[in-house]
Parts: sequence; C-alpha cells; structure tokens
Amino acid sequence: MTDGRLTAPLHEAHPTSPGRRLPDTQAGMRRRNLSRVMHTVNAEGPLSRAAVASRIGLTRAAVSTLVDELVRTGLLEELGPERPGRVGRPGSALALSGRGPAGIGAEVGVDHLAVCAVDLRGRVRARAVRHGTNRGRRPEPVLTELAGLVRQVTAEAGQEGLWPAGLAVAVPGLVARDARTVVRAPNLDWHGTDLGALLTGTPTPAGAPPLTDDLPLTVDNEANFGGLAELWLGDGTPRDFLHVSAEIGIGAAVVVDGRLLRGTRGFAGELGHMPVRPEGPQCACGGRGCLEQYAGKEAVLRAAGLEPGEDRVGLLAERAAGGDKDVRRALRGAGTALGIALTGAVNLLDPETVVLGGALAGLAPWLLPSLERELARRTTGPARAVTVSRLGPEGPLLGAAHSVVRGVLDDPAAVAGRP
Amino acid sequence: MTDGRLTAPLHEAHPTSPGRRLPDTQAGMRRRNLSRVMHTVNAEGPLSRAAVASRIGLTRAAVSTLVDELVRTGLLEELGPERPGRVGRPGSALALSGRGPAGIGAEVGVDHLAVCAVDLRGRVRARAVRHGTNRGRRPEPVLTELAGLVRQVTAEAGQEGLWPAGLAVAVPGLVARDARTVVRAPNLDWHGTDLGALLTGTPTPAGAPPLTDDLPLTVDNEANFGGLAELWLGDGTPRDFLHVSAEIGIGAAVVVDGRLLRGTRGFAGELGHMPVRPEGPQCACGGRGCLEQYAGKEAVLRAAGLEPGEDRVGLLAERAAGGDKDVRRALRGAGTALGIALTGAVNLLDPETVVLGGALAGLAPWLLPSLERELARRTTGPARAVTVSRLGPEGPLLGAAHSVVRGVLDDPAAVAGRP
Repeated sequence: MTDGRLTAPLHEAHPTSPGRRLPDTQAGMRRRNLSRVMHTVNAEGPLSRAAVASRIGLTRAAVSTLVDELVRTGLLEELGPERPGRVGRPGSALALSGRGPAGIGAEVGVDHLAVCAVDLRGRVRARAVRHGTNRGRRPEPVLTELAGLVRQVTAEAGQEGLWPAGLAVAVPGLVARDARTVVRAPNLDWHGTDLGALLTGTPTPAGAPPLTDDLPLTVDNEANFGGLAELWLGDGTPRDFLHVSAEIGIGAAVVVDGRLLRGTRGFAGELGHMPVRPEGPQCACGGRGCLEQYAGKEAVLRAAGLEPGEDRVGLLAERAAGGDKDVRRALRGAGTALGIALTGAVNLLDPETVVLGGALAGLAPWLLPSLERELARRTTGPARAVTVSRLGPEGPLLGAAHSVVRGVLDDPAAVAGRP
Repeated sequence: MTDGRLTAPLHEAHPTSPGRRLPDTQAGMRRRNLSRVMHTVNAEGPLSRAAVASRIGLTRAAVSTLVDELVRTGLLEELGPERPGRVGRPGSALALSGRGPAGIGAEVGVDHLAVCAVDLRGRVRARAVRHGTNRGRRPEPVLTELAGLVRQVTAEAGQEGLWPAGLAVAVPGLVARDARTVVRAPNLDWHGTDLGALLTGTPTPAGAPPLTDDLPLTVDNEANFGGLAELWLGDGTPRDFLHVSAEIGIGAAVVVDGRLLRGTRGFAGELGHMPVRPEGPQCACGGRGCLEQYAGKEAVLRAAGLEPGEDRVGLLAERAAGGDKDVRRALRGAGTALGIALTGAVNLLDPETVVLGGALAGLAPWLLPSLERELARRTTGPARAVTVSRLGPEGPLLGAAHSVVRGVLDDPAAVAGRP
C-alpha cells in the first residue's frame, strides 16, 4: 500500500471500536475487499476461489487477484485441489494460514499472569501462566514478569513459523479510550498507569529483542475482552447480548450488533455499581447498595461465613455442590441481586440474551434459579434467555489474543509487509 | 440508478439503524459520495464546489459531477456567485434546496395529534395539531384523523414546491423492529397494531390521493424520536448521550456514537421500568418499585395530592414556581428516583451527558437538585453533566420529520427520480 493514510497502525485505538472505517477510495475499497475474503474464509472455509467469489459477490477474476496477494503475504494457504465430484473445474481450497501472524493475548489477573498465542485459525499455539498474587504490587515488576512471559510465548510460537501481529492485555480495571492507560484498577491498587509506556520500557534481557518496539499494543478491561471472546468463540452467541462476569468485582460487556459498547471514557459496563437497594451497604465507589455489595466475591464469601483467599470460587462451588446451606443461601441472595440489576440493564438495552461468564459461570447452577425468577417477574414479554459461557475464566485471555487476530482479518493489508 | 439493488426503499427499516450500509461497488461508492456532499453542505453550507471538494477529499472535477446531479434533481440549489475577496476564482455557493423533498413528521400523543413538514434545510414549513384525548380510542378513527392532518400539511407544503419524501410517526409505545407495528402502547390501549397497514388503508376523501401508496413510512417510539431530535437539533449535543423524557410514562433514548441503540426487539430505552426500590409499589409492568412508580406523571401528581387530568405538567410547574411545598416535595422525590435509576444507566453506558427532555424539561428546575445530588454521590469520577433539552415536548414530532430529512441526506440517490 502506498497511500500514507492507508498504512496507519492496525490498532488505532480499540480494534473493535464502532466507526472504524477505511477510507472510501479505490485503494480503500480494495483493502475492504481483502478483509471480506479473509472473513469469508474464516467463517466458511476451506473454500475455493469460485466459492469465495460467489459468497462476496465479486467476479472470480477480482477475487483471484485478492487471493493471490493474501497467499503471497502468507495470510491464506492453498490446501491443494478440492475433492472431485463437484460441479465445474476443480479449484484449490483456501484456508487461513496456520503460520504467519499470531495474536498475543496477555492477562494481568489479581492472582495470576497469563499469556497465549493464537493463530489466524483461532488455535492456541503457545501459552504460559504464573500464579501468585499481584495485589498491591507496583506495576513495574508485574509488567517485567508479564513481558518475560510474552517473550517466552512469542519464542515458542516463532518455532512454528508464527510472528506476533500485536499484543493485547486484559486488566481488572477501567481503561481509558487510548487503549493504554489503566485509569483505576482498585484490586491491584493501580491508578493512572500507562501500561503502554511501562511495557515498552521493561528491562530487556541481554540478546532478547525489545518487547513492543513496533508491536501494536492494546490494553482493555477484562470484562470487555471476556464479552468479545463470547461474541467470537461462543456457541451460537447472538450479536446483541450482555455478558456479565465476576473476578473480584463484577463487570459487564455490552455487545450491540456485534460491537462492544465502550462509553465516552471507555468505562461502559460497570454493572457492579448499579444500585440494587439504594439504602443498602456503603460501597467503595461512594454509592450505597451497589450490586457488588450483594454479588461480588467478597460479599458472597462474607454471607456464606467464609474467609477471603485464593480460589474461593472453587471452594464456593464445591460447598454448594455438597449441599452447604449457608453457601447456597449466599449464592441465592447473589442471584436475586443479579436479577434486580439485570432487570434494569435488560430494560435499558433489550439484548437478545444475557451470558454469565468468568467466575459466575462455575457458580451458575446456584445463582440461576433466583436470578431468573427475579428477571422473569420484573420484565414483561417472553422470559429472557440467560445462558452460561463455556469459556468461563478463560474468556478474557482468549478475547485478548483473538482481538489481535480479528484485527488482521479486518485489515489484512496492514500486516502484509510485516514482520 | 440502474442497479436494482440500489433502488431499494429509502427506509428499509429504521433509517438510523446501525449497520445500514450501501453496497461496496462503484455505484455504491458514488451513491455514498452523493451523500457526503449533502451532509457537508448541510453541516457547513453554503459552500462552493471547491470548498466541498476540499472538505470531503475528492477532486473538484469529481465533486462537480456529483453536485450537477444533485442540482439537476432539485436537492441542492446554487445561490449565485460567492462574494468577491476570497482566494481563487469565484464559485457559486451551494445550499440545500428549500423546495423539493420534505420530511413529514406525525405524532400520536395520548392527548393530541400533530403533523409537520420540514424541508431539507430543517425548517418547519407547515404544521397542524388536533387536541383531545386518544386514550382508549380504537386505532382506526385516530389514524383516519391523523391521515387527514397529513393530507392537510402535505397540501400546504406542496404550495411551496415541497413534496413528501416520507412519513414518520411517533407513538407512545413499544414499536417492533419492522418500524410499523405498535407492539404495546398501554396509555392508548393499543396492542399489536400494524400502523402501516392501517394508515395505508384509511378512507380516502373523494378526489384526494391515497395517503401512503408509495410514501415510505416509519413508525417509532416517541422517546426514540425525541432522542434523535436532540442529536440532530440540540445545541452542542454530543454523539453519546442518554435522553430521558416523560409524557405519561418515562422513556429514554440511548445514543451511541451518533446512532440510536434500538435493542433486539426494538424495545431498548425502557428506563421507566428500572427497579429503583426493589420492594417498592407494584407496577403495571409486573415489577415492583420501578422508576415510573416514583417519577411518572401519575405518581408525581399523587405524591403532590393532585388529580390526574389534561396539562398537569403545566400545573405542576406553575405550582412549583409558586412555592407549593407539596408539589416541590413530590418533584424532589421524583428527582431522587431519577438519580438512582440514572446511576445504573450511567454506570452501564458511560454516556457523555444525560439530557432531560419532553415534559421533564419544563420541570427541570425542581427535579435537578435532588437528581444531580444522587448521581454525584453514587458515581465516581467527575460529576456527570445533566442538561435540559430546549426542544422539550416538541422533540418527538421534530425528530420524526427530521428522520425523513436525514434519510434523504444519507441516500439522496434514492429520492432522485421522485416524486
């Protein structure tokens, strides 16, 4: 691509921001058509050139030129002739490349760090995890460790012919619309932390390449990446839904027509601070009776008479499954509070479904009855579908890695000259 | 335009639906560029051809061809040479036409019917109103009256060289995404009413042309049109906001990045049924303690010790201005309930501002103090701007008419061959 405007970084801000449009010129049209070929092969491949052409409504000659470029730059692979017996001249089936660009996803959890590499076909090709609390640690040492895991995963993926197209980092906090700055992550005690600058500036081991020198970097809230993972990887997930997840706090992702609703400052989805009982207990946010005071992890542990600690969600699920009355009562109460808060959200947004993800997925059997009862008695019309994510706590990490992969599908021309 | 796909009706569903995109072909690109010329002249006109070209980044020759077509089809007017003294050869300034296509807006209120015609320049050129309750009346006679007003306004506008490009009808109820069917309008007692079929089928007076034979028709909720009016006509209204309005019930319009969020079934924005106090009074929706139970018109009148009736909002404002303690207390309570419900909405959506419209605009001086106090103490970060619409109760009717005008700006080619 020669037009300077067309070689803007792949991730200008958030790759999934509404309104991101390529320019309306001949070159922009061609660039969009390259993307349509990639998305068509992703959704329905392997496909012959003729099949791609008929799917996207361009001539076979036009599609062949596009495909040639995508094959030459290593984004598509030709799998060899299709099996005989089909109508017409046999064509070589096209698939997304299992080599070439990979999405690197990273997660800064309160109790762990994780990194993975996902190829264009959506397969996880390498991963690394470090357990141990990050609560109260300064950002620099945490990010130095994270950068080490990124290097390890990138090197491992590199041995299979993959190179990093971008790095996306999920954090448990509010992220500004610059997709770099953690405005507030109360459970890490990070405030106004520029993760972009810190990650680029982490010490580089002797001989290792600098981490993010020209690697596009995106930082986003874990609930947002969890919601996007559900959109992209969920089983039959519709394009309009509300994804509710809990780690320490409670977050939500609002997906409308296949796009994440981010809000003016990037703070949309703060379901945890929806007032459930306006004169209820004081919340750290300054409000009273917020959802988190009834359905947050600490509130549920307290209501169940348990101490906070690591992997308390597993303990809650185990006790509930074993018939522990206190735990079941605590989860029932959390389900009721979730049902009240979701009534407000459903009335405001009219989503097709509500998906419970993150730690809530594992507790769903004991949350759902009271949650669904509350929602049904407070909303009119047919009962709202509440489903449970099969990604569970994996959602944010997978969503982060896939956001990079989706960026390549959305604009393959932007990575064509790399690495 | 010769490609059959390109002459689809102007209003396929809702003209402002996200995702409405013209096909990505040469013809589609040209059609989008015609729209860009119209929007540029609308936003910044009068402008010379050269100025339009520089604004939209096309060559002057390309823009001239587009402008010629728009002038020939009566959508743009040449105002004559620009005043001298500017750099370069003087060009004729272009403005949107004050003749040609007009948007016809109509409103079915609980207590009135109204119709107006708005030209491409956004001026109201004709209007008609009929007062009197529609509560409990069957749809047919109401729509026959409405059709009469539409004919009257259309005829009046026709005398000034305007012809109807479309009819948009605002109703106080939930409208399906087909943009025709009123699913539920409790205050009219209309349920599952196909306004499209009924309006087309209303008796035609002798000699009068049939009403909607090929006139594109859109039906939408009054709160949605009120929100769109604020987006298009408000003074400095941002592209992300929550518009809250009240007539009999309380409705909201969620505008994200300049687009209305409609919801899966078209029911988004039902702020009136957000639970404010979950064990509060029973609501007609089946829930308890909904916002409408505290801030709806009837709830406020009851709390103020007043009887329901016509123009009660005027009475409330008058009494509050006169210092009536009961009315002021009732409005303070309504403001508190609005503040609690808006906390949830603001946390979920992160809008740039909240705009009070409809009947709430006139009561704002007595609602705002408690509303803003509640919002400030329950949400973190800088205080949220709450502004008051200057359109007030005019919003829905103007929004309806302007939605047709925006449809012409969005796709001028679709009306080029008409009337």
